Amino acid sequence: MINNLLQLVKEKNPLVHHITNYVTVNDCANIVLALGGSPVMADDKEEVEDMVSLASALVINMGTLNSRTIESMLLAGKKAKALSIPVIFDPVGAGATPLRREIAQKILKEIKPTVIRGNMSEIKVLAGFDTITKGVDSLDDTENGSDLAKKMAKKWDCIMAITGSVDIITDGQKVCLVKNGHPFLAKITGTGCMCTSLVGTYCGVTEDYYAASIAGVISMGLAGEFAFENLTEKEGLGTFKMHLFDFISNLKPEDIATGGKFHEI
Amino acid sequence: MINNLLQLVKEKNPLVHHITNYVTVNDCANIVLALGGSPVMADDKEEVEDMVSLASALVINMGTLNSRTIESMLLAGKKAKALSIPVIFDPVGAGATPLRREIAQKILKEIKPTVIRGNMSEIKVLAGFDTITKGVDSLDDTENGSDLAKKMAKKWDCIMAITGSVDIITDGQKVCLVKNGHPFLAKITGTGCMCTSLVGTYCGVTEDYYAASIAGVISMGLAGEFAFENLTEKEGLGTFKMHLFDFISNLKPEDIATGGKFHEI
Amino acid sequence: MINNLLQLVKEKNPLVHHITNYVTVNDCANIVLALGGSPVMADDKEEVEDMVSLASALVINMGTLNSRTIESMLLAGKKAKALSIPVIFDPVGAGATPLRREIAQKILKEIKPTVIRGNMSEIKVLAGFDTITKGVDSLDDTENGSDLAKKMAKKWDCIMAITGSVDIITDGQKVCLVKNGHPFLAKITGTGCMCTSLVGTYCGVTEDYYAASIAGVISMGLAGEFAFENLTEKEGLGTFKMHLFDFISNLKPEDIATGGKFHEI
Repeated sequence: MINNLLQLVKEKNPLVHHITNYVTVNDCANIVLALGGSPVMADDKEEVEDMVSLASALVINMGTLNSRTIESMLLAGKKAKALSIPVIFDPVGAGATPLRREIAQKILKEIKPTVIRGNMSEIKVLAGFDTITKGVDSLDDTENGSDLAKKMAKKWDCIMAITGSVDIITDGQKVCLVKNGHPFLAKITGTGCMCTSLVGTYCGVTEDYYAASIAGVISMGLAGEFAFENLTEKEGLGTFKMHLFDFISNLKPEDIATGGKFHEI
Repeated sequence: MINNLLQLVKEKNPLVHHITNYVTVNDCANIVLALGGSPVMADDKEEVEDMVSLASALVINMGTLNSRTIESMLLAGKKAKALSIPVIFDPVGAGATPLRREIAQKILKEIKPTVIRGNMSEIKVLAGFDTITKGVDSLDDTENGSDLAKKMAKKWDCIMAITGSVDIITDGQKVCLVKNGHPFLAKITGTGCMCTSLVGTYCGVTEDYYAASIAGVISMGLAGEFAFENLTEKEGLGTFKMHLFDFISNLKPEDIATGGKFHEI
Repeated sequence: MINNLLQLVKEKNPLVHHITNYVTVNDCANIVLALGGSPVMADDKEEVEDMVSLASALVINMGTLNSRTIESMLLAGKKAKALSIPVIFDPVGAGATPLRREIAQKILKEIKPTVIRGNMSEIKVLAGFDTITKGVDSLDDTENGSDLAKKMAKKWDCIMAITGSVDIITDGQKVCLVKNGHPFLAKITGTGCMCTSLVGTYCGVTEDYYAASIAGVISMGLAGEFAFENLTEKEGLGTFKMHLFDFISNLKPEDIATGGKFHEI
């Protein structure tokens, strides 16, 4: 299934509506295009319901929340769900401020996202644990992470995709661990956001959102590996970032089959 | 005339005021700088009239409309026209939502842009045809496209620059077809916006807005050709995008004369 | 001292809160990450005081001012000062419009920034001289520039970092001149903003804000030199920009010692 999804993206060219932050929005648009999707960024309350009605998936990313876009997120998210369009939620920096904690909970309750993609510290905040944003992710402890992810996936009736040194994707029953990626992915801004956008793009061509989430996470991880491996001595994070787009635009279904390091537990 | 415009840009360093979207704003600023212009992005209603008064051209791009910037667009656009500063309008995604259709018409009526740069589906929406945003551009049919473009240029008393596999530029009398470009230009976000910004920069140094629009469209097309031709096997859309800026920053008047594939019909 | 600061950044990974413009925000985030800091961009009035309380430095950049973010800048800036968190102010385009002049003065008076980083024309506007934004910087006249910088540093009780063909950094007593850099730095957008963000990152690990400002200015200048020197014939501003991030991510303390061209006068 996972291997087929990329082919479907190329064929169907899904429209992926984003309400996202202004820091990484260009990268999110370009990564969706590179994979074969069609991004649209629109966040005014006067048009988000119309726009999402045309889309195959909605990505809500709360990287730079403000009162204007919060309202738009809620309107678009509810409309998407009413139309059975998958909603992928990225709770960026969920634990950093009371505003983010509050809005994340509001989105969980009022929209009921189809997929939640975040790092472990963000997910712990959503789950009610008391962590701080800059705290070290506890993904060394994959077993506990998997248990938490399954519990949350059941509670919120969604796919959980928690990325870190080992990525955990679960629908509440099945759990898939992905070991692709490279530490440099954490050294540029937007790789988490881009991962969410890739998941959103795959979700736009299937109803198997578990498989779509795995495909998105693997694609981003493989991009990180390629981007690092092709650096020469004088090159660094600028070239690394450019390579990510090079890789995704050249990605073939067999690359995921060949390079994907994942197994279900 | 067209060949001289680049030299004029280098000499005059025109200030190009943009009220634009937050997705591709960085690319628009950098492409203006690469050509030899000076970009300024300002969108608050308290300052747009002051800012545009300093400028040689105003670019209005409705990629991410919102109530705050709509007001600023109208204020700046009217001020620019009152001062005989050319206004270049990019009706991004004009057909996607009722809000966009409405605001595009408002801008046409209240500002009366000097140049309109869009793709065929956007222009058809402005002209009142019932199309959908994701519909295939009908530029295979260049003859009909030219007729529509001429008609609209006369009706709105402006230069029409419609980009696609063949680009059509017209002042309502003369029609110029441009065959530069590469399909990869449609695979990254912002190449339409950047084309509009290049047109705006050329419009900042001449009153021959027809020639300026041709120069802008050819420059972008040539950049796409160069960017593709210089890709190696492992490279893709990341490197392609970087090459666009490399090319525009190295562009010389003779490159347009040598590489430009255009003819008047 | 200056040489040690980079090592401290790598060790302490300071959180640098930005309230900045939407044109260069991605570049600012990535340059902070490349140096070893941790950027966070948040600008809603409901969360900026909470966010800045977690941070080691606050960067306020007025590149794209609007009524919503002005309020947030003032709230965050005052909170930062109350908590002894350094505030680095970049008065982008200060002279362009009455709004910018007014808000810059308000920020000076109400926040009392720790460091002001701008070009000479912007600083002259802050100082009350009547200049226009596009006017030529008078840095050929370094002596007069130093005097003005010292006067302003004393008046506003801050570090002044004025960048140009020669950079001037002063605490009102000591003056440091830096001669690193390359003219291409003025040909892409955001190198001023990125310089301010680097200064902010260094300020996040020391209370010697004079040394931190020198370190930031030298780092950006060295990046420009490297980025230019490594261009091949067909490459231009696209590749140049990428090189900046490559260089900063590979920067080592000894590079500053070896390559830094600075002396105190």
